[in-house]
Amino acid sequence: MGVFIRMGIKFANRMENIKSSAIRELLKLTELPDIISFAGGLPAPELFPVKQLEEVCCNVLQNDGKAALQYSTTEGFLPLRNHIASRAGKLGIECTAQNILITSGSQQGLEFTGRIFINEGDVVICESPSYLGALNAFKAYIPKFVEIPMDEEGMIIEELEKALEQYPEAKFIYTIPDFQNPTGRTMNLERRKRLIELANKYEMPVIEDNPYGELRFDGEHLPSLKSLDTKGLVIHLGTFSKIFCPGLRLGWVLAEPELLSKYIIVKQGADLQSSTIAQREISKYLDLYDIEEHIENLIKVYRVRRDLMLETMKAEFPSNVTFTNPEGGLFAWVTFPEGMDAADILKLALEEKVAFVPGEPFYPNGGNANHCRLNYSNMPEDKIVEGIKRLGKVLKSL
Amino acid sequence: MGVFIRMGIKFANRMENIKSSAIRELLKLTELPDIISFAGGLPAPELFPVKQLEEVCCNVLQNDGKAALQYSTTEGFLPLRNHIASRAGKLGIECTAQNILITSGSQQGLEFTGRIFINEGDVVICESPSYLGALNAFKAYIPKFVEIPMDEEGMIIEELEKALEQYPEAKFIYTIPDFQNPTGRTMNLERRKRLIELANKYEMPVIEDNPYGELRFDGEHLPSLKSLDTKGLVIHLGTFSKIFCPGLRLGWVLAEPELLSKYIIVKQGADLQSSTIAQREISKYLDLYDIEEHIENLIKVYRVRRDLMLETMKAEFPSNVTFTNPEGGLFAWVTFPEGMDAADILKLALEEKVAFVPGEPFYPNGGNANHCRLNYSNMPEDKIVEGIKRLGKVLKSL
Repeated sequence: MGVFIRMGIKFANRMENIKSSAIRELLKLTELPDIISFAGGLPAPELFPVKQLEEVCCNVLQNDGKAALQYSTTEGFLPLRNHIASRAGKLGIECTAQNILITSGSQQGLEFTGRIFINEGDVVICESPSYLGALNAFKAYIPKFVEIPMDEEGMIIEELEKALEQYPEAKFIYTIPDFQNPTGRTMNLERRKRLIELANKYEMPVIEDNPYGELRFDGEHLPSLKSLDTKGLVIHLGTFSKIFCPGLRLGWVLAEPELLSKYIIVKQGADLQSSTIAQREISKYLDLYDIEEHIENLIKVYRVRRDLMLETMKAEFPSNVTFTNPEGGLFAWVTFPEGMDAADILKLALEEKVAFVPGEPFYPNGGNANHCRLNYSNMPEDKIVEGIKRLGKVLKSL
Repeated sequence: MGVFIRMGIKFANRMENIKSSAIRELLKLTELPDIISFAGGLPAPELFPVKQLEEVCCNVLQNDGKAALQYSTTEGFLPLRNHIASRAGKLGIECTAQNILITSGSQQGLEFTGRIFINEGDVVICESPSYLGALNAFKAYIPKFVEIPMDEEGMIIEELEKALEQYPEAKFIYTIPDFQNPTGRTMNLERRKRLIELANKYEMPVIEDNPYGELRFDGEHLPSLKSLDTKGLVIHLGTFSKIFCPGLRLGWVLAEPELLSKYIIVKQGADLQSSTIAQREISKYLDLYDIEEHIENLIKVYRVRRDLMLETMKAEFPSNVTFTNPEGGLFAWVTFPEGMDAADILKLALEEKVAFVPGEPFYPNGGNANHCRLNYSNMPEDKIVEGIKRLGKVLKSL
């Protein structure tokens, strides 16, 4: 095909809001093979249950091959929804398969949330900073973002209260209470309770995005917002990407049936259903294997990597560079002195063959250039140490 | 979880436009086990390459397990995109992997089309009737549908010309040129050429939805619209659902890079990427097996089923009931005498344990209740004969 010039084609207005970013171009460089990359949000591939998946693939195809390759229901494979509902008990959530819709990763649940709730100009309340992929999904519907500042204990609830007073017509609160992306911070119990009180007061839906909650390295699990929900306002998003593997693209929406029905209708139009065979494979895996044991193994490895990264940063970074202390999940958040730009630092870091994600795109209204996100789950231990040392060298040179 | 009453929650306006339909409720009845159903658009599960898929699953997991279960690029697995680009030659389309984005079924390509092009109130031009799933995907963006009447040779081009004169600002033309869903009709070559001339004149994007094009039972393949495209205006949607199996949920968008880049950005926000392992499995299947031979087998079986259905309708239906003569694909379209309502006939048919889809939902602006769509790919031969006989009995009783 040649290159054509088409001046007449007009796209929808929303496309203006979801242009590819300069940062994405920069991030392509982070994928070169000799780079030590802390940029992606990738789990450790050496921990994927490859052998077990081979067994369940064969099992599913031998026993239910025709059904596994056929169309199936939009809601998802019932035995898998039963597994998810039963595992939600671990988070203190009482529910049944009727509360579960299978999605293609929790990214799809985020995208559907935008479609279901946001008219152009509507207010969306989120943590500052927040998950880039969610912000981009919401941006397609052209909302106004109201950012709630965070401290080490998560979203500052007094600030949320002020925002709700000012914008009682906001469409929803989006939060990642556990080991937040990008900061690694966790919302404390008192704030979770207060958030639910405020949601109840304003009848405000709460999107609880929980990809990492089961990956806690230290301390006790805190109750999920959904488990504290007394008015059916919390829509909980989960995924197999971080506790099993991302390549199958399976996540779920957990909500009250009345709300879930909106997600089901939207799913129908979006892609009819998620992969029949992938759903049956994970369901069979959950029948045959102990995923809790698998998660324990992930936690052991990721805890070592987090410790190594934090210790090496402490030793190698200048004292005016600070960072969060994640108790779980995949990310730490680094703050450079005011006035520094992480995108400039990334260019220098790439010369030293080390990469990260600059923080600015995680702020939906921009600014805050002096931060970056570091991932510790994907690189082996020796590369974590070497990469942080190189980054320390870059920072000391500034 | 209990049932909660939440009066305060406000959804986006678009949700008013994508309510679940009464017809969907009726269709749930068609899934009861003792029903002979011509309702779905399902391929024949007994022809799925289950054994071969088991082999490629094991091959992929043994040789590339870690990569197959990890995140991968939004565009899709390069060897699979190469396979698709190379197979597009069969449709007369010259292209490379740079023209291909992998999607989660071609339904996702349809949904993205709505998102990329439609502002509320924009005109979308489509065949009358047209594919229900496409109409529903577009409806979420609240367009105005302009329907172009069809005859046995497809869209009536003079009517298209009039519509373009009246709505030169329309966003795109949506068409299924080969073995259309729901009518089974095929657009003739002269009309294809005229359609491209008109698209060029108005610089109008054309969405060519081609799920069935390779399933031709009689006559010669006609060139795809994309192969006739001289200005890069045609966006071609393909899928493995009907030539391989739907359960893996893999399709593709084939377009000029400048247009494809819009689909890639939207895909990123929608679900990041399609299943890594499913892409590698189909790619490996295409490496190891001859899919053309598999498609020949499908054609042989479906041809017999189509013949049986048409012959039995001829013998059993009253002479005031007419039907199309599909040269390929999955569907025939039946027209009852003016004034009859297919939804009423369905109720009677269900009493005889036979089901179909009433035609009205395939008309985006409603009306035309005296049609129905029949699928012949999914039911074995004896059930096709028995089901059509029962339907004939119902029709004769009216």
